[in-house]
Amino acid sequence: TMNLRSMEPSSIRTLLRNGEHKREPTTYWAEGYKQTNLAILPRKLAKDFEEFARGNLGALPLLYVSKAGELSAGYLGKNSDVRTDAPAYQIVANKTRTIVDNLLEFDWSDMVTFYIGCSFSFTQILVENKLLTPSTKGVSIFRTNIDCYESGPFKCKMVVSMKAISKHALSKIHQITSKFPDVHGAPIHYGNPARIGIPDINDCIGDTTDFVENDVAVFWCCGFTAVEALMQANVERAFTHGPNSVFVTDVKQEAVNTE
Amino acid sequence: TMNLRSMEPSSIRTLLRNGEHKREPTTYWAEGYKQTNLAILPRKLAKDFEEFARGNLGALPLLYVSKAGELSAGYLGKNSDVRTDAPAYQIVANKTRTIVDNLLEFDWSDMVTFYIGCSFSFTQILVENKLLTPSTKGVSIFRTNIDCYESGPFKCKMVVSMKAISKHALSKIHQITSKFPDVHGAPIHYGNPARIGIPDINDCIGDTTDFVENDVAVFWCCGFTAVEALMQANVERAFTHGPNSVFVTDVKQEAVNTE
Repeated sequence: TMNLRSMEPSSIRTLLRNGEHKREPTTYWAEGYKQTNLAILPRKLAKDFEEFARGNLGALPLLYVSKAGELSAGYLGKNSDVRTDAPAYQIVANKTRTIVDNLLEFDWSDMVTFYIGCSFSFTQILVENKLLTPSTKGVSIFRTNIDCYESGPFKCKMVVSMKAISKHALSKIHQITSKFPDVHGAPIHYGNPARIGIPDINDCIGDTTDFVENDVAVFWCCGFTAVEALMQANVERAFTHGPNSVFVTDVKQEAVNTE
Repeated sequence: TMNLRSMEPSSIRTLLRNGEHKREPTTYWAEGYKQTNLAILPRKLAKDFEEFARGNLGALPLLYVSKAGELSAGYLGKNSDVRTDAPAYQIVANKTRTIVDNLLEFDWSDMVTFYIGCSFSFTQILVENKLLTPSTKGVSIFRTNIDCYESGPFKCKMVVSMKAISKHALSKIHQITSKFPDVHGAPIHYGNPARIGIPDINDCIGDTTDFVENDVAVFWCCGFTAVEALMQANVERAFTHGPNSVFVTDVKQEAVNTE
């Protein structure tokens, strides 16, 4: 099998466009490059959604917002096609979610795409720094009791991602991830999940996480907040990336620090 | 004197529009509300600057981008006038900077305003948590050796702000500020200023900071990076807020965490 870890983002997108590697998770793909969540909405909802994202920039750091009908990702991926270049997509329609391989069947002229920073962008860096235990390959996601900034129909609780981190590594995980503020940055909580509205760490969206001795649940703002907002707003039809299958950009993920 | 700390943002903006409190720093004004840096450019430069900001979202979190000619701040301040409602402005023209009270004399039809999250938004919260020593009233700003993401003519080193924080409070300062990712979030460095290109902590832009025993220099990404980018790009004419005199919004600064 081809090594997607060391492949150029544009080559990966070409494979995906040709129908290969569909439904695979993009974790560790194109090491060193930013990956983005996708939220794709009809133009009539775009203004409210953009305000929603700007008001919750920790969860939804906007790296690019397309014009209506624009297929490519601006500076993030010049020859890209947002309808085909992620491994999977989610159709969100009246509170249901359906996974599909591509979005080619839909009229695109009125659609606006939001490219949102994703923590997959720094997963490899955490591994290199020996901060992820073998138990942290999946992504556990939770709804919290934290109110998002509201805009128009978009009103929901903040969604967070969680990783199991050794308590001895808490300081280092905080320091390293804080250097990536454009992809959620530092954790926003650890210690007491119940305080942010999570009574049961096994009751999550996505994969459950196994803890080993000394592991602590560490939480970050999460781009899945967009899905939650689209569901709660009961939009007629919108699209997102598929779970764990996001968009690989041509822009390097660089820490804002030389250490 | 009126108590600007407890005043509503819209009332403060009205006073400023009437010429009162000009050239005063906005630190601690309108407690609990977001304050924003301003970068105002001719439309022909706006696309490149927006990409520059999105590529450096830690330093330049975009809370609102106006249409060309738009005077008000969208959801950030519905009845605002960006030409008058900050205490001071800077005209950046061919690498010179000039401070003025307002921008009423300029044709606005072609100007695009970027409202950028500012750490003044959480200063009061740091004081309440006893994390700022009396020596930390001013803001010391430094150029670093960290390359910004480049876009068009905008290419410069990251600018950071610095506060003197007791070494005993480092963990808490990290935890608290990480809950405000939309206004720069957690520190990106402490320990060794030389590592990020700062050989002399007294050689700064803005006010020098006095250190007391056990204080450590803590650095955050800073919106002044916009000024640096405009200067380095040698733009013919652009505007920013005046030093320490930023724009007070109607949007509450809420932490993304209940603790």
